[in-house]
Amino acid sequence: MKVYIIGIGLIGGSFALDVKANFPEAKIFGIDASNANLARAKELKLIDEKASMADLKEADVVFVAVPVDVSLGVISKALDQVGENTLVIDAGSTKSKLCQAVSNHENRRNFLAAHPISGTEYSGPEAATPNLFRDKTNIICEVEKTAFKLQERALEIFSKLGMRIRYMDPESHDRHIAYVSHLSHISSFMLGKTVLEKEKNERDIFDLAGSGFASTVRLAKSSPAMWTPIFEQNKENVLETLNGYISNLTQFKNLIENGDFEEVFNEMERTNHIKTILNGIN
Amino acid sequence: MKVYIIGIGLIGGSFALDVKANFPEAKIFGIDASNANLARAKELKLIDEKASMADLKEADVVFVAVPVDVSLGVISKALDQVGENTLVIDAGSTKSKLCQAVSNHENRRNFLAAHPISGTEYSGPEAATPNLFRDKTNIICEVEKTAFKLQERALEIFSKLGMRIRYMDPESHDRHIAYVSHLSHISSFMLGKTVLEKEKNERDIFDLAGSGFASTVRLAKSSPAMWTPIFEQNKENVLETLNGYISNLTQFKNLIENGDFEEVFNEMERTNHIKTILNGIN
Repeated sequence: MKVYIIGIGLIGGSFALDVKANFPEAKIFGIDASNANLARAKELKLIDEKASMADLKEADVVFVAVPVDVSLGVISKALDQVGENTLVIDAGSTKSKLCQAVSNHENRRNFLAAHPISGTEYSGPEAATPNLFRDKTNIICEVEKTAFKLQERALEIFSKLGMRIRYMDPESHDRHIAYVSHLSHISSFMLGKTVLEKEKNERDIFDLAGSGFASTVRLAKSSPAMWTPIFEQNKENVLETLNGYISNLTQFKNLIENGDFEEVFNEMERTNHIKTILNGIN
Repeated sequence: MKVYIIGIGLIGGSFALDVKANFPEAKIFGIDASNANLARAKELKLIDEKASMADLKEADVVFVAVPVDVSLGVISKALDQVGENTLVIDAGSTKSKLCQAVSNHENRRNFLAAHPISGTEYSGPEAATPNLFRDKTNIICEVEKTAFKLQERALEIFSKLGMRIRYMDPESHDRHIAYVSHLSHISSFMLGKTVLEKEKNERDIFDLAGSGFASTVRLAKSSPAMWTPIFEQNKENVLETLNGYISNLTQFKNLIENGDFEEVFNEMERTNHIKTILNGIN
């Protein structure tokens, strides 16, 4: 199996590691805008060889893991190059714009739109880690538009990598993911900003902050190059989540301001049962 | 050494475990408003015996770990009871109101105001865990108001438990902690609320949410009984942090709304260096 990974960072590199571990005969090729990343990926043994877009007609699988603004062009270009039996998979955090962009491509049947809900706050080839996808949900959109044989190949790989599959239309995907992922990143970045603005002496933050702070601002370490186009492509849904969040924060602030601490307590208690949900998430 | 723990939950119970481990001759007594908690604490071997406030004159150390509204009364009452050589320590997340409340107590010199920056989102005796305080900061306020000999005893215990000591006045403590702890809890609770309101089908959240969401809403599992009085006692500082946070979120929302994604990128990149700070926090 010839596997071409376009974008050899956290997600692409982790995918490469797991494919190698599960398909020992697979040969992994890397394509990346950064030559430094490619060289590093080879050193780290994430890929066997460098390659270029012109080679894709040889590919059994093409896995695209680049920022979602870049992927719109890259996936179309990849589909221009593919052979009849090439499967192109993407791993981006937005799905509507992408599914629209490829909807009329003559090789649409070679493409499978996917979103593995996995990752860390780190990026680049060094961030690649084995078993990143194990027991994680992978959302597949518009599965019916992918050729049967290629669906099958994709599912075999996803299954070997330990992913749980969920099928969803692209619009529902973007709406839900705005709430359970995109909003978390903004809340984290803005929490970090608020604290950094106030605490000019960063040594003090370091000393006073505990694991709770670290946990809530962890996502503020994430890559702006990855997240900016996600917010752009999912603008309407992200704005809706932000309006809801800001409104809830303002209402909570008003309760404190008015000294209504009975209701402050009730607000927290009503949200407390999130425990039972979170206990199911790694 | 006779150690009396008032409030035998996560913090009190963890303190008990570490004191036992580091001072094998210590005898640990538990005082708690809940008889069920006391019984459980004895089963879990957190305490040797139940006790009552009237016994405190026998105590070498009294460690108070109850919600901060309760602690105002409890600490005064404990100070009414203490012998000349009894050290009373508290572990609450607010310090100004408490230091004011005890400032004129005739046994003020028996009291040390402390705040170990440690804990988890769980509560109750079952949540007690060894080494909870190791390598964590413990903020001590108004140390000069505690008798020398009792300061010494406190520092010996804190040192054996592995705490890093920082001295601060109560007002600065409350101002900084509002930013690096209290705000994180509100951001988490309101994030949880926003998502729960939207996602009526909670099974869907469970399926779609990843580790990023889990990390940002983890603190929404925290105890409302503990956190409500913290927000009440630190009202002015908490309101300031909320105003800053809501204003930053609103500004970020406006950038998205206006399609200024260059500045969305810059905002995130400016906050990104929080990496270097967070890498120092466990």
